[in-house]
Amino acid sequence: MDSFDWAGFFADKSELDREAYLFLDYYIECSGDPKLAAAHFCAEQSTAQWRRVGHDEDLRPRFGARVITLEVIAELPAFSYGLSQATKGPISACRVRIAQPHANFGPRLPNLLSAICGEGTFFAPGIPVVKLLDITFPESYLAHFQGPQFGVEGLRARLKAYDRPIFFGVIKPNIGLPPDAFTALGYEGWLGGLDIAKDDEMLADTPWCSLARRAELLGEARRRAEEATGRPKIYMANITDEVDRLSELHDLAVSRGANALLVNTMPVGLSAVRMLRKHAEVPLVAHFPFIAAFSRLPHFGVHSRVITKLQRLAGYDIIIMPGFGERMHMTDEEVMACVQACLEPMGPIKPSLPVPGGSDWAGTLPLVYERLKTVDFGFVPGRGVFGHPQGPRAGAASIRQAWEAIASSKTLDEYAKDHPDLAAALVAFGKQNRQRSENEPQPRGGKK
Amino acid sequence: MDSFDWAGFFADKSELDREAYLFLDYYIECSGDPKLAAAHFCAEQSTAQWRRVGHDEDLRPRFGARVITLEVIAELPAFSYGLSQATKGPISACRVRIAQPHANFGPRLPNLLSAICGEGTFFAPGIPVVKLLDITFPESYLAHFQGPQFGVEGLRARLKAYDRPIFFGVIKPNIGLPPDAFTALGYEGWLGGLDIAKDDEMLADTPWCSLARRAELLGEARRRAEEATGRPKIYMANITDEVDRLSELHDLAVSRGANALLVNTMPVGLSAVRMLRKHAEVPLVAHFPFIAAFSRLPHFGVHSRVITKLQRLAGYDIIIMPGFGERMHMTDEEVMACVQACLEPMGPIKPSLPVPGGSDWAGTLPLVYERLKTVDFGFVPGRGVFGHPQGPRAGAASIRQAWEAIASSKTLDEYAKDHPDLAAALVAFGKQNRQRSENEPQPRGGKK
Repeated sequence: MDSFDWAGFFADKSELDREAYLFLDYYIECSGDPKLAAAHFCAEQSTAQWRRVGHDEDLRPRFGARVITLEVIAELPAFSYGLSQATKGPISACRVRIAQPHANFGPRLPNLLSAICGEGTFFAPGIPVVKLLDITFPESYLAHFQGPQFGVEGLRARLKAYDRPIFFGVIKPNIGLPPDAFTALGYEGWLGGLDIAKDDEMLADTPWCSLARRAELLGEARRRAEEATGRPKIYMANITDEVDRLSELHDLAVSRGANALLVNTMPVGLSAVRMLRKHAEVPLVAHFPFIAAFSRLPHFGVHSRVITKLQRLAGYDIIIMPGFGERMHMTDEEVMACVQACLEPMGPIKPSLPVPGGSDWAGTLPLVYERLKTVDFGFVPGRGVFGHPQGPRAGAASIRQAWEAIASSKTLDEYAKDHPDLAAALVAFGKQNRQRSENEPQPRGGKK
Repeated sequence: MDSFDWAGFFADKSELDREAYLFLDYYIECSGDPKLAAAHFCAEQSTAQWRRVGHDEDLRPRFGARVITLEVIAELPAFSYGLSQATKGPISACRVRIAQPHANFGPRLPNLLSAICGEGTFFAPGIPVVKLLDITFPESYLAHFQGPQFGVEGLRARLKAYDRPIFFGVIKPNIGLPPDAFTALGYEGWLGGLDIAKDDEMLADTPWCSLARRAELLGEARRRAEEATGRPKIYMANITDEVDRLSELHDLAVSRGANALLVNTMPVGLSAVRMLRKHAEVPLVAHFPFIAAFSRLPHFGVHSRVITKLQRLAGYDIIIMPGFGERMHMTDEEVMACVQACLEPMGPIKPSLPVPGGSDWAGTLPLVYERLKTVDFGFVPGRGVFGHPQGPRAGAASIRQAWEAIASSKTLDEYAKDHPDLAAALVAFGKQNRQRSENEPQPRGGKK
């Protein structure tokens, strides 16, 4: 083992049992021979020391991760982001696809994460810069996961909402209101046309706005809104909390009247979501705190597409993600990759509804729809509904009117002539969007 | 609310009830007026819309996060890392300390994470570049957490090991061996002088090496090693797995003979660790997969010091972290900050044993000790014990001999003259260290 036998970490894809491997795409920057670096990358992610001292054995054929393709994209004058490693040789930017034998760890999310973006990935010698770009699962691996319970079709059936986006509103002010005042806002939003009124991802079960009381009042208000409008409605309660309270809070919220539940994925952990999924009676909804901390930079960390796929696998029916527009720091391609990760075929796993969000209001809906080219998405304004100058009922109506305009092939300005809620939104938020560069706190959108 | 009232998000620290706030230090890069940007940063982390439309109210005095200090470090020609935001004005690099009212979310780790490194943190307008650098808790907040059950002193008492570092060994080959062969290696390591033989962070409960069988055999071997050496020993089993299996795997591993348990923090989630802590009968040990993905870059993400503090709060007795030496991509200052986060006073929370690791062997021990200037640390070679040319017993002995050299103020070369295990390590790994730039897969250390 004195000279590193790199060929043992390469394989021809056609020779592998494809059901036995996950396929992983990485961007790496390495110094020296890229083949050697890629082989080390595989070694560190699997069986770094593949033989006991004094034994004639080779654990790699069964347990080794293998390089399937390796493409040198560019020679670089230096590593990106000021990172360094004093290894010899020229620096290359590469795309590498590796096959990871999943029997090394099994169908367990924490062990999967440890293998694909753990110490092996980020501490392979000569590779200071690395980003996990994508993951592909064989059917045999997917078969161990439940995935979404309702999925897009199940959610549409619950809401009786077809052939259009699903309209969410994040009740604002997001924190600080007592349950009755908070509920009054949600009720107005439903009456104006929201399908789903939701807690902000920062609203917890606190003494000043307990989940029990909130779910009770909003549950009642939801039923009144359903009667008043003749439409099914959803109150989505945020049950993000310590892992050992999730099932209990599920039961509490659902028994009082919440009929979907929000969980902040990374703060709670993907595995806890998978656990909750086993127990859940209502749709589960993902929010994205913390993900930007490791996904924003194009050449370092973990791509948001990977986390989206893992969220779907864990069982979320709805995945809220950073959407279009400069404020969210996502390229259109990255948003589309996450949307696709929700909707594309994934063996037995149902699709999740993608909800690309960020400072939305009526005026951003045409841009979102134009880019997505599907109605299978959720639209999630906060202040665009609850900061509307005529209140949340008008705010929600302005969103629905924006959709009516799109559906009847009219511009928002045209449609606003007979629709005062939309007209008021265009005046209020259109103006503020133009002031975005002056750091206005009001809704900002994709208008550029 | 048309012109953003930034002064409402500033406060004089002396006017705040210090027990009611967490203090957070961030590095930010913003465009335009730093005061305005910092105020928005606080708004997005707390009550972004602080008033209902048509109501005369202000939720900020109770619920707003507040800027306590704001220091402009530098004017920049562009944002770091190629990030951008088309807001007007010059770009400033700043250090900002904010006070976050913890009653907004309570003593819950997922909600804490959502507030301090969630959407508000990473999507504040005009601030594309941000890193959470540090967090300080008031005693009233800490009082809600158990923290480590044993801590450094409890661990020393269990091992009857005082006035010296604690010696760990990661059994290698890390994956692929059946339980009996794996156990034989651990046994040899203990006989050579290891305090703790541990599973690799990638070793899971798999059909080819079940946790039950491994814990049974290593538990037996541990007791034999204790008899043979007259010293207490620890077998640290990796129970990283789905969250809803943690308690069950704790019981299984401990009943068979494991007497410490390893958990990969981020893959499992901090909250699941806190849950396990309530149930645990043995020391809990953290490993660091995934942390580099958001902590490696100096100006983006979350500092490893923050995660170290949160791991201690969650209840780990031992925290394994990337250590010294270029391969681990940590500056000495960052390692020291994490070590300090384990050991410094933290209200009622016991210290955790810091274990800075990465390609260690006998030759790196003097450097580690020289930098840490304390014996309260763990030393965790893998191949430096199990890749020793004369086997793991000699490998472990070489580590203990290195410590004896240090304790008797001798150089390793001097001490090696009468100590063949150390001498062999110096020959084998010293040479390989010099070959590190050629990507050797063998132990690499801090020798530069």
